[in-house]
Amino acid sequence: MKIKGTFLDEISHDIPHQNWGREEWRRDFSYMKKAGIDTVILIRAGYRKWQTFPSEVLMQQEGAHRPPVDLVQMFLELAEENGMDFYFGLYDSGKYWTDGRFGQEIDINKRFIDEVWKRYEKMPAFKGWYIPHEISRDTGRIIDLYAELARHGKDISNGLSVLISPYIDGIKNVTQYKTNTTKSCGVTLKQHETEWCEIFDGIKGAVDIVAFQDGHVDYQDLTSFLQINKSLADKFGLECWTNSETFDRDMPIKFMPIKWEKLLLKLEMAAKAGIEQAITFEFSHFMSPQSAYLQAGHLYNRYMDYLQNLK
Amino acid sequence: MKIKGTFLDEISHDIPHQNWGREEWRRDFSYMKKAGIDTVILIRAGYRKWQTFPSEVLMQQEGAHRPPVDLVQMFLELAEENGMDFYFGLYDSGKYWTDGRFGQEIDINKRFIDEVWKRYEKMPAFKGWYIPHEISRDTGRIIDLYAELARHGKDISNGLSVLISPYIDGIKNVTQYKTNTTKSCGVTLKQHETEWCEIFDGIKGAVDIVAFQDGHVDYQDLTSFLQINKSLADKFGLECWTNSETFDRDMPIKFMPIKWEKLLLKLEMAAKAGIEQAITFEFSHFMSPQSAYLQAGHLYNRYMDYLQNLK
Amino acid sequence: MKIKGTFLDEISHDIPHQNWGREEWRRDFSYMKKAGIDTVILIRAGYRKWQTFPSEVLMQQEGAHRPPVDLVQMFLELAEENGMDFYFGLYDSGKYWTDGRFGQEIDINKRFIDEVWKRYEKMPAFKGWYIPHEISRDTGRIIDLYAELARHGKDISNGLSVLISPYIDGIKNVTQYKTNTTKSCGVTLKQHETEWCEIFDGIKGAVDIVAFQDGHVDYQDLTSFLQINKSLADKFGLECWTNSETFDRDMPIKFMPIKWEKLLLKLEMAAKAGIEQAITFEFSHFMSPQSAYLQAGHLYNRYMDYLQNLK
Repeated sequence: MKIKGTFLDEISHDIPHQNWGREEWRRDFSYMKKAGIDTVILIRAGYRKWQTFPSEVLMQQEGAHRPPVDLVQMFLELAEENGMDFYFGLYDSGKYWTDGRFGQEIDINKRFIDEVWKRYEKMPAFKGWYIPHEISRDTGRIIDLYAELARHGKDISNGLSVLISPYIDGIKNVTQYKTNTTKSCGVTLKQHETEWCEIFDGIKGAVDIVAFQDGHVDYQDLTSFLQINKSLADKFGLECWTNSETFDRDMPIKFMPIKWEKLLLKLEMAAKAGIEQAITFEFSHFMSPQSAYLQAGHLYNRYMDYLQNLK
Repeated sequence: MKIKGTFLDEISHDIPHQNWGREEWRRDFSYMKKAGIDTVILIRAGYRKWQTFPSEVLMQQEGAHRPPVDLVQMFLELAEENGMDFYFGLYDSGKYWTDGRFGQEIDINKRFIDEVWKRYEKMPAFKGWYIPHEISRDTGRIIDLYAELARHGKDISNGLSVLISPYIDGIKNVTQYKTNTTKSCGVTLKQHETEWCEIFDGIKGAVDIVAFQDGHVDYQDLTSFLQINKSLADKFGLECWTNSETFDRDMPIKFMPIKWEKLLLKLEMAAKAGIEQAITFEFSHFMSPQSAYLQAGHLYNRYMDYLQNLK
Repeated sequence: MKIKGTFLDEISHDIPHQNWGREEWRRDFSYMKKAGIDTVILIRAGYRKWQTFPSEVLMQQEGAHRPPVDLVQMFLELAEENGMDFYFGLYDSGKYWTDGRFGQEIDINKRFIDEVWKRYEKMPAFKGWYIPHEISRDTGRIIDLYAELARHGKDISNGLSVLISPYIDGIKNVTQYKTNTTKSCGVTLKQHETEWCEIFDGIKGAVDIVAFQDGHVDYQDLTSFLQINKSLADKFGLECWTNSETFDRDMPIKFMPIKWEKLLLKLEMAAKAGIEQAITFEFSHFMSPQSAYLQAGHLYNRYMDYLQNLK
């Protein structure tokens, strides 16, 4: 099992920023390429008032701050230089959909998609859309949000692929603003299957790829959840990847690079479940030789050793 | 807007120590100078039983531990070598004034000022006093503490400047010993203005410079608070700087260097409010090319790019 | 007072992993040696389902994951190359003994000891056993656990030394999964003495060396606790070391390298209490020049300066 893609977490809720300029990003893309990564996914183009390029829609309607650089343009160029596919992550208001106003979240994003496509459609690396609204359960109008935004993105872009990356409501699904690392009860396999059956049924044909995050359940339960994810995705015709997190959820310090042994175990479990492709959240903080977390560079070396042994 | 000064956080409540010796400090002062910093402010010379030089007052009266080196002497020498002004931060007992015993906090500090001045008055870089008691509201006898200590320092030192750096009781005013980053209610603009009108009225003529910390309010509210701070300071004849924090208060990990975009936004807001000078808390952990947090070196590079573009 | 030993924290509850391979470990052992370290102690060979070598006992009985490398073999070889003594830390189930099932914790560990000794008895660096069950009070059947496992290890290995490293139930004994750093009440000196008198009486002749962790009490109280530890150990014929922690328990970020001044103070206090040897938790994260925490390398330099001055 190889990691073929990574998120680009430049507007983060919770991971401190590395303050890289174009030079550092260029170097990081070459590290990614060397590790076999061919897909980069912008985690979100905007969050609340922060944005990755000066969007007229977000500045006018959301009062977003004007950013000093156009990160989307830079990422598209670097992806092109390295022969990678770029997936564009939409806007997360951090309020409408979390308050139940799904309609407003959908509306602002449709206008945003229109602006984005007009601005960047000529860029050859633009190969897909990513819907950044992370969920684990069938709550609110999440099906409508996924399906409508996926269809809107596909329609305007002549059918580019749409990716989502939900999580499992397992025992490690605790807020990063608490220091505990587990909760007493996680979702059962049965309940997870029931709710995702509903969701997949509602988004099939619109969303193309699902890559569940693999860090919220205990290691001993992971294979079972991965198998459900894979078999449900197959049933509804979605491609199923694993989003194998490269940070460690078991530590009181949030968040540091994962131990290689844990990552390896998760990749092996995904292979056992029949999943063929992995992406990760995310390379630049947790796996890059130039990460501010030096543990990441060592994780890169361990992963490169592993790749070498696969050959 | 340029950052002209930085705190020196060598007795910290909450930021892990870097274990630098004289060689590393010398290098850091040269990095500061290269970035245009001409003022260094010792955040506090003593805290509880920890101190920056072997003070007889603190050892005898507070049972302070004898420190292995004299940091004050070293900082004064390095400031002189680099043509910088050094502000001396007083003693924070961590108990008297927080328990309401303001009189004891004032008394120990008056004796401490006497000792300090006798010990270091010949050092050419000694250019001011800093009162390290950080507050956001008009509570207890804080006006007496500020005014009396400021007058005592000025009197003994032929009128050296006195600086304070309070904070705003905004929604991000949460203890660093919790992992949440916001609280439900912050102080209103009106209430902030009312209380600081009282405080400034009580300390005018004694305290010379006020540099409010800029990290405790939401970005969208910052300009308004900065404008109140500036207009109140003008009214009572205090010089008004901004203490533009270089660490990020929005992250669950406490504390890491701030994203350059956020720092830039805060500096621009301060300029808009008519403030002419910025200092920061603080260079050596959060902005230095040799910081243990590698994000800091990248922040330095982004800031140097910005300085270059200002020219 | 010199630091003669360090733990090896390769299966950690709470410290993020550095992802080192053999090359980095070889380099780290040479850094240790240069700093005068002659003893390495594996903190635990297994914890829950994680293990340091593929143990048949742990895989069959506990369903442990098969690890990608044999760390025990590597550590034994590196210790031998550097002329160091290696202490083997036993298995911590993370459940039996914490749930009161001390008998099961003892049973699994006896079988584990048998397997371990058979596998590694020929390795010349194998010089002792470490019981990783950390306690501060006389609770449950901890005396039985210590005494039985110590005797079992000694019996099988022709009397190799047995080490424990308990802690003091002081005001800094707070879970790492909270961000506060102190609690209101710590154990009194009297109560600490009473309970450890009981424990030492129960384990004398079985456990050879006790090295209390020195980070859970306020600095002003540490000397008194160290004196009790030393005098109780003398009374019951145990060797008494200090486990001088090299991480800082006073910071909201958990855990970073300690300030040199604090470590120096603790070492001096241990000397004052008549203790002759220090070990630390632990070198590789908190004191190594190649640690991911760059503060650690500076701590190493400060400590090397100190060693130089002792000569």
